Amino acid sequence: MFTGLSAFPLTPLRDDRLDLDAFGRIVAMLAESGVDSVTALGSTGSYAYLDRDERQRVVGAAVEAAGGTPVIAGIGALRTSHAIAFARDAVDAGARAVLLAPLTYQALTDDDAYGFYADVLEHLPVPLVVYDNPGTTHFTFTDALYGRIAALPGVASIKIPGLPAGVTAEQRVAQLRDVVPEHVTIGISGDAFAARALNGGCDAWYSVIAGTLPAPALRITRAAQAGERDEAEAESARLQPIWDLFAAHGSNRVVAAIAEELGLAHPGSLPLPLRGLGEEGRMRVREALAELDLR
Amino acid sequence: MFTGLSAFPLTPLRDDRLDLDAFGRIVAMLAESGVDSVTALGSTGSYAYLDRDERQRVVGAAVEAAGGTPVIAGIGALRTSHAIAFARDAVDAGARAVLLAPLTYQALTDDDAYGFYADVLEHLPVPLVVYDNPGTTHFTFTDALYGRIAALPGVASIKIPGLPAGVTAEQRVAQLRDVVPEHVTIGISGDAFAARALNGGCDAWYSVIAGTLPAPALRITRAAQAGERDEAEAESARLQPIWDLFAAHGSNRVVAAIAEELGLAHPGSLPLPLRGLGEEGRMRVREALAELDLR
Repeated sequence: MFTGLSAFPLTPLRDDRLDLDAFGRIVAMLAESGVDSVTALGSTGSYAYLDRDERQRVVGAAVEAAGGTPVIAGIGALRTSHAIAFARDAVDAGARAVLLAPLTYQALTDDDAYGFYADVLEHLPVPLVVYDNPGTTHFTFTDALYGRIAALPGVASIKIPGLPAGVTAEQRVAQLRDVVPEHVTIGISGDAFAARALNGGCDAWYSVIAGTLPAPALRITRAAQAGERDEAEAESARLQPIWDLFAAHGSNRVVAAIAEELGLAHPGSLPLPLRGLGEEGRMRVREALAELDLR
Repeated sequence: MFTGLSAFPLTPLRDDRLDLDAFGRIVAMLAESGVDSVTALGSTGSYAYLDRDERQRVVGAAVEAAGGTPVIAGIGALRTSHAIAFARDAVDAGARAVLLAPLTYQALTDDDAYGFYADVLEHLPVPLVVYDNPGTTHFTFTDALYGRIAALPGVASIKIPGLPAGVTAEQRVAQLRDVVPEHVTIGISGDAFAARALNGGCDAWYSVIAGTLPAPALRITRAAQAGERDEAEAESARLQPIWDLFAAHGSNRVVAAIAEELGLAHPGSLPLPLRGLGEEGRMRVREALAELDLR
């Protein structure tokens, strides 16, 4: 469950309410495409904006629509007791694993973050993916902290936010392998890095784009897994217009616009105050979809 | 209500539940001290960590304990519809005004933030304080955006996060007065800046320290209001050990430790994962309280 391609679907809203019909159709499409897992309530799934009842309904809908494909559920919260409650709800709804980011309002110390994971894991009957996403959480993991947390019983994988400048993917994986136990997989996020990271030895890709357009993400993943390094890199290079849009507007707004454009979600699918892409950005999205034959 | 000293009390927890007895005693002490308003559920009041039911109970307890002192209530949320619901609850519980920060998980554009305030104000029967706290929200206001938002009907005050380097307080107030309507007051936060800012023409001090130790904050405020600039600055300078602790550990952790030390809150008063000050920080807090005769 913690290797290969995990697809992160949007949680589309309609008039500020969950659009579970649209969500179920997206998850079913992902499962049919052959992704290795579906992660509901990732950042792309707007978990941080949803209340407890909404989150539980989203996980239930994901499990139902995913069929035999395992569902991982995001349980991130600012408060430890809330994350524990979200985890309980997610497991009750059928999630096979959970994904947890250290959200911040007040800055967290390393000991705060370690305690957060330790306290949640103490109550957790399923494996946990450590979610490092400094762009949204404003928390920075050190490799030493990865190591401390990954040694806690129940940690199955670490979702790293990309590759730092100046090291190869192979070097980065080696650095992480030095601190993280063998049974804990290393998954890349930051879609533009995925081909390089998978070619360099990452075990998994926790993917934004795969949650809306699974086919090109599967091509990259299966090529890398088969040792066809050049094919993986070439498909990623072909998608550069998408990566450029992600860098300019944030991946969340761009995939929401793609989903709206493709009829997978109704307009205004993001939770306000997020207004989504403006008209110019949407035009570039339409151009990219046509140019890349992704419709 | 939007001038003078507003005191921001902690919302003490005990075993991860609201300790409304301790909270009520703190608010009553603040009201008796003569502060001009009490702001419940500020950052110091851990609003971001509390659920809807907890927030409403905190506002109700604040209004009851504050007697004739007006209560402003924080209503910050990531999602517009949640902030609107928190505002409704706060007004129902007796809050006379609300305080709203643009929280972020996904980064907000200026148009997102403007829309957030416009949408909340549309439903709001009481005045609103715009809360700029980039250290916790990771959103940066421009002066132009202050101007756009301050022009919305219902905005009563702007809480600025401190004074930038290289300008005097008088210059900063003049810059803000250029963009903000006359009826909108300008309040300083960042307690270490307060004496300078009040001497320089700020109308209000939205104060962390006043929520736990109102006496020295009142001395600074009343001196500045009486034109006794040197007295205000001298009292602030005397409190430098407290400002140094705020800078080193964050004001929230330090006032929680002060409140615990003074018996105003039980140990572990912050919401986990925030573990509060370590033993070395607590020792420095005890030393500062003794040295400054603040017990």
